[in-house]
Amino acid sequence: MATQDQVITCKAAVAWEANKPLVIEDVQVAPPQAGEVRIKILFTALCHTDAYTWSGKDPEGLFPCILGHEAAGIVESVGEGVTEVQPGDHVIPCYQAECRECKFCKSGKTNLCGKVRLATGVGVMLTDRKSRFSVNGKPIYHFMGTSTFSQYTVVHDVSVAKIHPQAPLEKVCLLGCGVPTGLGAVWNTAKVEAGSNVAIFGLGTVGLAVAEGAKTAGASRIIGVDIDSKKFDIAKKFGVNEFVNPKDHDKPIQQVIVDLTDGGVDYSFECIGNVSVMRAALECCHKGWGTSVIVGVAASGQEISTRPFQLVTGRVWKGTAFGGFKSRSQVPWLVDKYMNKEIKVDEYITHTMILDHINEAFDLMHEGGCLRCVLALHP
Amino acid sequence: MATQDQVITCKAAVAWEANKPLVIEDVQVAPPQAGEVRIKILFTALCHTDAYTWSGKDPEGLFPCILGHEAAGIVESVGEGVTEVQPGDHVIPCYQAECRECKFCKSGKTNLCGKVRLATGVGVMLTDRKSRFSVNGKPIYHFMGTSTFSQYTVVHDVSVAKIHPQAPLEKVCLLGCGVPTGLGAVWNTAKVEAGSNVAIFGLGTVGLAVAEGAKTAGASRIIGVDIDSKKFDIAKKFGVNEFVNPKDHDKPIQQVIVDLTDGGVDYSFECIGNVSVMRAALECCHKGWGTSVIVGVAASGQEISTRPFQLVTGRVWKGTAFGGFKSRSQVPWLVDKYMNKEIKVDEYITHTMILDHINEAFDLMHEGGCLRCVLALHP
Repeated sequence: MATQDQVITCKAAVAWEANKPLVIEDVQVAPPQAGEVRIKILFTALCHTDAYTWSGKDPEGLFPCILGHEAAGIVESVGEGVTEVQPGDHVIPCYQAECRECKFCKSGKTNLCGKVRLATGVGVMLTDRKSRFSVNGKPIYHFMGTSTFSQYTVVHDVSVAKIHPQAPLEKVCLLGCGVPTGLGAVWNTAKVEAGSNVAIFGLGTVGLAVAEGAKTAGASRIIGVDIDSKKFDIAKKFGVNEFVNPKDHDKPIQQVIVDLTDGGVDYSFECIGNVSVMRAALECCHKGWGTSVIVGVAASGQEISTRPFQLVTGRVWKGTAFGGFKSRSQVPWLVDKYMNKEIKVDEYITHTMILDHINEAFDLMHEGGCLRCVLALHP
Repeated sequence: MATQDQVITCKAAVAWEANKPLVIEDVQVAPPQAGEVRIKILFTALCHTDAYTWSGKDPEGLFPCILGHEAAGIVESVGEGVTEVQPGDHVIPCYQAECRECKFCKSGKTNLCGKVRLATGVGVMLTDRKSRFSVNGKPIYHFMGTSTFSQYTVVHDVSVAKIHPQAPLEKVCLLGCGVPTGLGAVWNTAKVEAGSNVAIFGLGTVGLAVAEGAKTAGASRIIGVDIDSKKFDIAKKFGVNEFVNPKDHDKPIQQVIVDLTDGGVDYSFECIGNVSVMRAALECCHKGWGTSVIVGVAASGQEISTRPFQLVTGRVWKGTAFGGFKSRSQVPWLVDKYMNKEIKVDEYITHTMILDHINEAFDLMHEGGCLRCVLALHP
């Protein structure tokens, strides 16, 4: 059945209101307009940013919306002027666009493309400032320019990474967010060198990807910090070779790590989104050169603080978004690396489900044993 | 008259108590012990760090002490084992040591030598944890390992930069602190590239040296920010080509600069020591790559804050001490650059006096027209 140019009615998990269970609805997905791509989403994972917006704590969250931003699928149809992908291409939709034309893309210094941000930031498409999703005529906002909790979604062409057609979509969907964020924080943002000492705060998917990135970069000591000691066993598989539980110490955790490392670590990564931990992560860095990278996303309105002396004496405070990876250029490269067994992906998937059980999947995220839950949208 | 191995009695400005006028006293200066150098200080300038400790706001300030850390002189005698300088050498005492042996010096990543810090931080010499200064038998603390408000001082050999014997000491004394701090913040810490946009907060000596550093690095727009508009005329001579007075605007200064530069500057420098300005300096940087360097020294206990989003979206927050210059290795190089007319020094000297008038010199520092006041100690 040809669907091109047709409105597609399919299943999607709609967040009608903040903090209320998602509802599986029959959603109308309009055809892609100029510069847009409609994707049949086969698999999507859940990420904490979905949960954050869903919770209502994100002041920029718009409802009703279709969440989801870590997924993989197949191009169903393309709008006018789309040249880089065509129907049938296997793709990963990317919340971080890459237009290759804007000031940001041309700078050579950042992956933060500005092309569609003003539209994706307010849940619409750039062309007409409208949504392509509706339920019985009522528009449903897009989310992060991806909205992958739907059997079909429409995204901007600058947000679509075309990947190897043999890549297993049920696995590589993870390369849409968490895993690249952690790997890239190490490789692109911190640029960890061989022999470095590293501390990782928070051993969820992103923290474990940081560990793997640090291991492949040749880091010597990879210290995992988490208040759940059960995570250490899993973390070892990703490269963590020392574990510190702040609950086991009376001293501030930064002091514990400074004492453990003869002055502090060379690199630290905050993978939680907690501003107090961000401070600890900076302050556990070695005087003179220690660099701390903020990877986690803090709740709106929260602030980080430290004494300026920490920076004047040589520590560097930075952050990363999507690990500094240029999405369209580098996600396919990450997929290839996975297929060549150079990076892990399968190991982060602790649960699989079908879309209908998405609310249970969100409940799972708050349990220690869950890293990533992958949902099948067309089982 | 041979003074080697003798106690020298000479004039020095003693800070007996915080916030009380300095008193010119006859001070006894003991001979240098192993690894120490006694220097006849010919010229010293005043810097805001002297004023800060003198004010009593520095919780690590110890009294009575002899302040001063931006000076030049001639080696009078050396202690056992000192090989790199000998009596008669022209030198600049450096508050930032360089031992070439410690973890910091060997790292290749920082100028923050750790060799003598534990002693200089508490106003004594490393060998015996005692002071070489006394007045009628009462010990007087050293300050920053330099104590240049004295006709003779004793410093650690790792803190002595041997300079070109023809360099005019009444000028190059400035290369002991403020000018290298500004130049190095640009060259070593920020690594400003040609064509960059730069904002400089505070147009005192350090801020002007930042401007000169940025100009020589090829920066395009060099925006000076100061609440005293009279400083713009002088600042132009150092490379500042745009001026913003926060008092002329209702908007926060970071927003003014973001608007002025289509998104923010590539590099910003805080040269005041005000934590609110440090925040503004970070937040006026361009998303994706803007780097802010804290150069000013904030009062004890004060903290910097921002939203972590500022860093996650690509801004970098760092700091610098002595501009990242390795003191013994690079101060002589800076002196040579001055002698080759590649960097300014004379232009910062707005006043000259003799040591006896040091309290007036401190008063001058708080006036807008004063950059550096150089005191002659042996007029």
